[in-house]
Amino acid sequence: MSHSIGKGLFSYLLSPILSKHIRLMSGVFRGQKLVYSEFGEPIKVVQKEEYKTEPPHNNDLIVKMIAAPINPADINTIQGKYPVKPQFPAVAGNEGVGEVVSVGTSVDSFKVGDRVIAIKSGTGTWRTHLTIDKDYVLKVPKELGVVEAATLSVNPCTAYRMLKDFENLKPGDTVIQNGANSACGQNVIQICRSWGIRTVNIVRNRDNLEELVLFLKGLGATHVLTEEDLRTTKIFKNGDIKKPKLALNCVGGQNALEMLRHIENNGSMVTYGGMSREPVTVPTSALIFKNLKIRGFWMTQWSKENERNKDRLEMFEELISMMMNSELQGPAYKMVDFDNFKEALLNTMTVKGMIGKNIF
Amino acid sequence: MSHSIGKGLFSYLLSPILSKHIRLMSGVFRGQKLVYSEFGEPIKVVQKEEYKTEPPHNNDLIVKMIAAPINPADINTIQGKYPVKPQFPAVAGNEGVGEVVSVGTSVDSFKVGDRVIAIKSGTGTWRTHLTIDKDYVLKVPKELGVVEAATLSVNPCTAYRMLKDFENLKPGDTVIQNGANSACGQNVIQICRSWGIRTVNIVRNRDNLEELVLFLKGLGATHVLTEEDLRTTKIFKNGDIKKPKLALNCVGGQNALEMLRHIENNGSMVTYGGMSREPVTVPTSALIFKNLKIRGFWMTQWSKENERNKDRLEMFEELISMMMNSELQGPAYKMVDFDNFKEALLNTMTVKGMIGKNIF
Repeated sequence: MSHSIGKGLFSYLLSPILSKHIRLMSGVFRGQKLVYSEFGEPIKVVQKEEYKTEPPHNNDLIVKMIAAPINPADINTIQGKYPVKPQFPAVAGNEGVGEVVSVGTSVDSFKVGDRVIAIKSGTGTWRTHLTIDKDYVLKVPKELGVVEAATLSVNPCTAYRMLKDFENLKPGDTVIQNGANSACGQNVIQICRSWGIRTVNIVRNRDNLEELVLFLKGLGATHVLTEEDLRTTKIFKNGDIKKPKLALNCVGGQNALEMLRHIENNGSMVTYGGMSREPVTVPTSALIFKNLKIRGFWMTQWSKENERNKDRLEMFEELISMMMNSELQGPAYKMVDFDNFKEALLNTMTVKGMIGKNIF
Repeated sequence: MSHSIGKGLFSYLLSPILSKHIRLMSGVFRGQKLVYSEFGEPIKVVQKEEYKTEPPHNNDLIVKMIAAPINPADINTIQGKYPVKPQFPAVAGNEGVGEVVSVGTSVDSFKVGDRVIAIKSGTGTWRTHLTIDKDYVLKVPKELGVVEAATLSVNPCTAYRMLKDFENLKPGDTVIQNGANSACGQNVIQICRSWGIRTVNIVRNRDNLEELVLFLKGLGATHVLTEEDLRTTKIFKNGDIKKPKLALNCVGGQNALEMLRHIENNGSMVTYGGMSREPVTVPTSALIFKNLKIRGFWMTQWSKENERNKDRLEMFEELISMMMNSELQGPAYKMVDFDNFKEALLNTMTVKGMIGKNIF
């Protein structure tokens, strides 16, 4: 398992800017992109290709990509196992940060040199130069870390929305989550700390458990328990901490059921992953007599429905501000150039605790 | 199984008015009540007792009870298996209709001779004379059938609220439900017919299936399918009927899972019983990618939270109006006096499809 002291899991970030590209003339660049024309195992179907941009149309920008993460959802998309199906040939990648290098004649809200992130799902960020409508990027401060910017639109946003949209959480309230050391889980811990919300964090037992506990407590975790601890814990009974109003589930199966037992009446469990590959099982009495609400969350869908929505822009603003104040840190990462993309794809697929995100 | 052609299941109604009682003087009656002082098997712990009323206090009424149903929840309460625990000694029974026979000095909204139903949970309706605060009864028209009045506050209200409070249903929309021949299920069918909503009704296969199908279609069912039919049905694919926005579940287990498969994206499944004694199992993808909402409903809790609420009075008014227009009929029933209460208790407990309501 790719866990290092105090670092959590590695995320792989592609670094297009380190890959081969040249400027031919104003608005025309020759670069590289990672494309696939059929679903399949990523290391077989994804190919590196050279291409040339055209000068940008009226509303378009050309963005020289600096960093683009490989998320488990990208792997699933390439495998054809994600509900979003691209048109072929497709450039892979959904997230990333870059610098504006050319603007169309109708663009006045961006200028060359601006730092931007892609905020539309299915953009195809794994390329050196991205030609994109100005409405599908967001300007971010240059002082924002490259890794934080590149990974802003999926995991931090997922954590933020799940904490905002299901229960009205107030300072002093409790959130319980499993898979607490996942990329999203780490964001949950940090955002909760910033908002004064206490967290009970469930992780699998492992050899280096003590290190992981220290790492998560360093991020702001109130309690860290193993799945086994959770079965017998007395923290909710002895007054240490209020019963959770909200549970966040990316595991499913028995683990999710154990979390359910502790949720306060009228509370919610929100599922955003299924690493155990087991469904969510809910006792009838939890639904009827405790009035628990069992929901799901999918960031891609939310973003699609709220593309230009005020809530979305406020969210980006608040998350960026937290990042600038060092309240929210980006993931541990390894940056690789396009020459090494196959190794990065393979590792993202096989890292323990990541491949389980394939929930189909 | 206590199923008769065109009648559905029997409900047992106690008939206090047929039981021994006398008027001693104005406001003072000697009558009988069914009490228990410990949890246990109803035929062992419930005893018939004589008692004498006092003249009513300021805000109280004395109601001579005409009919009081035996609901499965009453059995569970006596067994101590229901989350609501009475104080001992307790008079059993939650529902019922009667006639006002005496009023306290501060009561001006009711008069002797009014027909009323008890609308507070835990009232203890299994007695000949009920002394009760005027705020805990509702006046109903004398033209309303005794059986409809006696059984109004649980099953029709449960059906009504589940159809109102989870999805915004419009004429032409579809609701799917299992246990469709249950007392609540029959109300769902009839209320939906009245509101122009189409219903897909799931029942267990049985010898007299054809009769049951005819009976439910007579109530207004659009489609009636067995659990096996549901697995292979094409009605949602061939355009016969829209996919359901709402599923109502009183069974759980595999049957609930089969219903889930057909719910429209963003729809809800509401659980109000667990006859199979199996939990509700929800695939991770149904939560994340279909955004299905898994909820529960408990009439007792809703009534408690909405005791004097406008919504509650509007609901009673609309249901009574449907009953007066013959759009909503009461259950098939058998009326028994207090001398035969043990037989009725025993039968309510053992009737197939009823005992399963004990979901603990």
